[in-house]
Amino acid sequence: MNKKNIIYAQSGGVTSVINASAYGLISKALKDPQIDKIYVGINGITGVLEGKLFDLTKESVDKINNLKATPASAFGTCRHRLKEGDEEGFQKLFKTFEDYNISYFFYNGGNDSMDTAHKIDEYSKKIGYDLKVIGIPKTIDNDLYGTDHSPGYGSAAKYLAISMLEASIDTRSMAKDSTKIFIMETMGRHAGWLTAATSLAKLNGDFGPHVILLPERIFEEDNFIDKVQKEVSKNGYCTIAVSEGIRYKSGAFVSDMGYTDSFGNRQLGDVGRVVANIILTRLGLKVHVSIPDYLQRSAGHIVSKTDQAEAVMIGEKALEYARDGISGFMVTINRLSNDPYKIEFGKVPLFEVANNTKYLPEEYISDDGYGVNDDFIDYAKPLIQGESYPSYENGIPKYVSFPIEDR
Amino acid sequence: MNKKNIIYAQSGGVTSVINASAYGLISKALKDPQIDKIYVGINGITGVLEGKLFDLTKESVDKINNLKATPASAFGTCRHRLKEGDEEGFQKLFKTFEDYNISYFFYNGGNDSMDTAHKIDEYSKKIGYDLKVIGIPKTIDNDLYGTDHSPGYGSAAKYLAISMLEASIDTRSMAKDSTKIFIMETMGRHAGWLTAATSLAKLNGDFGPHVILLPERIFEEDNFIDKVQKEVSKNGYCTIAVSEGIRYKSGAFVSDMGYTDSFGNRQLGDVGRVVANIILTRLGLKVHVSIPDYLQRSAGHIVSKTDQAEAVMIGEKALEYARDGISGFMVTINRLSNDPYKIEFGKVPLFEVANNTKYLPEEYISDDGYGVNDDFIDYAKPLIQGESYPSYENGIPKYVSFPIEDR
Repeated sequence: MNKKNIIYAQSGGVTSVINASAYGLISKALKDPQIDKIYVGINGITGVLEGKLFDLTKESVDKINNLKATPASAFGTCRHRLKEGDEEGFQKLFKTFEDYNISYFFYNGGNDSMDTAHKIDEYSKKIGYDLKVIGIPKTIDNDLYGTDHSPGYGSAAKYLAISMLEASIDTRSMAKDSTKIFIMETMGRHAGWLTAATSLAKLNGDFGPHVILLPERIFEEDNFIDKVQKEVSKNGYCTIAVSEGIRYKSGAFVSDMGYTDSFGNRQLGDVGRVVANIILTRLGLKVHVSIPDYLQRSAGHIVSKTDQAEAVMIGEKALEYARDGISGFMVTINRLSNDPYKIEFGKVPLFEVANNTKYLPEEYISDDGYGVNDDFIDYAKPLIQGESYPSYENGIPKYVSFPIEDR
Repeated sequence: MNKKNIIYAQSGGVTSVINASAYGLISKALKDPQIDKIYVGINGITGVLEGKLFDLTKESVDKINNLKATPASAFGTCRHRLKEGDEEGFQKLFKTFEDYNISYFFYNGGNDSMDTAHKIDEYSKKIGYDLKVIGIPKTIDNDLYGTDHSPGYGSAAKYLAISMLEASIDTRSMAKDSTKIFIMETMGRHAGWLTAATSLAKLNGDFGPHVILLPERIFEEDNFIDKVQKEVSKNGYCTIAVSEGIRYKSGAFVSDMGYTDSFGNRQLGDVGRVVANIILTRLGLKVHVSIPDYLQRSAGHIVSKTDQAEAVMIGEKALEYARDGISGFMVTINRLSNDPYKIEFGKVPLFEVANNTKYLPEEYISDDGYGVNDDFIDYAKPLIQGESYPSYENGIPKYVSFPIEDR
């Protein structure tokens, strides 16, 4: 039997543990006597298109091992999406597959990446090229269909919950005669999973967040101001998590600031700042705003041990599926129980993932719409358990890197 | 000899290690046979004015020990500043001192707090009340005069450097066909110590920051855009740290957005967003912006071990000085050498601290003004060494708290 060659690539927005999935897949493949070469597409599918690959079998074991604790995308990522009918693109892609004698292709990403993986799977069948295509889920947004949760979410949730706790006790410290309102803007334009995760801060003391603005709810200014006023009266301060994707009843994003700059460009503000200005104007209270942005998805310095372990295992599982002759599926995590937390791995067709979004379920949202209930906490709490820390040198984490710049 | 009673209070903006100084002072005082009661002013000097104090001798050893790893202000803080001639204020204050038979007063804060402490020291001498007043430095801004550095700066510097490293490798991951520019806004309105600290990210790999905008330099748009363009050409991406306090040649803050909202309020934007909009307009590149805000000063989840240890010792030293009969001074850190890093403690008159600001020295700034040089790195590197982690419960740090809300 001929040995098999692999291509693995990363795509879309990054997470703290996407490289942990790479580590799981690669370290398992290195030990597999049936696997010969392990290639990585530089900057996702664009590297495969351009024939820009790393041969990981040439890298040191140390470097491979260090992938596990390195956040962001060690091999570079892309937003490029293969479109149906892009015959030239598919031909270039399969030229690379042929040139490198590839039998297995693994794409580590979100919705769009699963769509691309699905199209590659279909094209391989159309032209009769024997390729096994497996998707590996990854997103801090947690909006991937068919899986209980996605690797990356647990660590981002943990980072946001810790940050919300720390900023809440900071605001509480200041509330006597200074800042009474703190707002943290989270990612997650379409689904409120990340915004909701800030509520995990309350697992250790009731310091906040007191108000959560989810994209699943219409933003109503009067109602919101009432809520904030009540919370300030009750607690002496109020901390707020807001999704970047909240909208008015009209459908307009709250972050659309409604004017153009001197060059005529429409100004998109930060929604956290917009909400802050509403509070300042209506209540006259001092507000601080935090926008973690990339920090929430690349915080390798505080990773959920559970999330990292699952990311590794899901990479391993992807290899197993391909070796078993499965193609056109994404690996999933199925939850068996919350407490004790038990999962098993499964699979879902790539095209189903590509065409669906997993919103925060209505039954997780509190009655007044400004928070989540215990069902959400029961769901999310297991995902943030355990702390994984990177190794440090010079007081700074020691992350691994590959030369991904255009050469 | 009569036993002595203490009041300790925290003031101004918080840090990750101000409670570590409280821990140092309190745990040493608890072991001191000459000290009887240890009181804490709730919400700084306002608690002392209003007679709202905790008696810490009644608290459990566990709770006192947990102060060491708890960020923000466990006892609440304030922005209240005692003014000369506020006879009523001073009388109220000294009424509390008399009522509780206080011999030592410790004020843990920044410039304004040292000014208040100085006035209390002067007033005590004026009315002949035997009080020893010692200031304990605290600020993430590192702008306190008379000390090599201030507790709080090392941990904020470490947090910002780690965050800049993580966001830089994130941006590098995305640069192929998406985000090429990342901007992180730091605190430090008057001095560039925090902005400069992001450059410590380069201790482990040259991923950024590529440009630093210090408040010590005028912001010149054309020149800045040239610099960014060059860095993007060279690296494929460019990450930027910007101080909230940068100004145009006119003296106007860059963060002043130049228009008013529909209610007539002048809009102050986030400088990070303003700089992003300049890049978007001039270069048409995709930009991401992070504004850590409070997260940078309350990040108890990743504290510099060196900073924490010094914060504890400086609290202990404050007690020693008071016991030695010293009054009207702030404890200082004097550096003996960078490598090996050696310090000793000293003292500076409170009024000198109150009336001065320690700017980032010109000799630390790089020739083009967009960065710092090795002299700064040699200065700052020792301050971020070692990692101190809090204990966790439910996946979230377990911080200690006291009931500081108005009752």
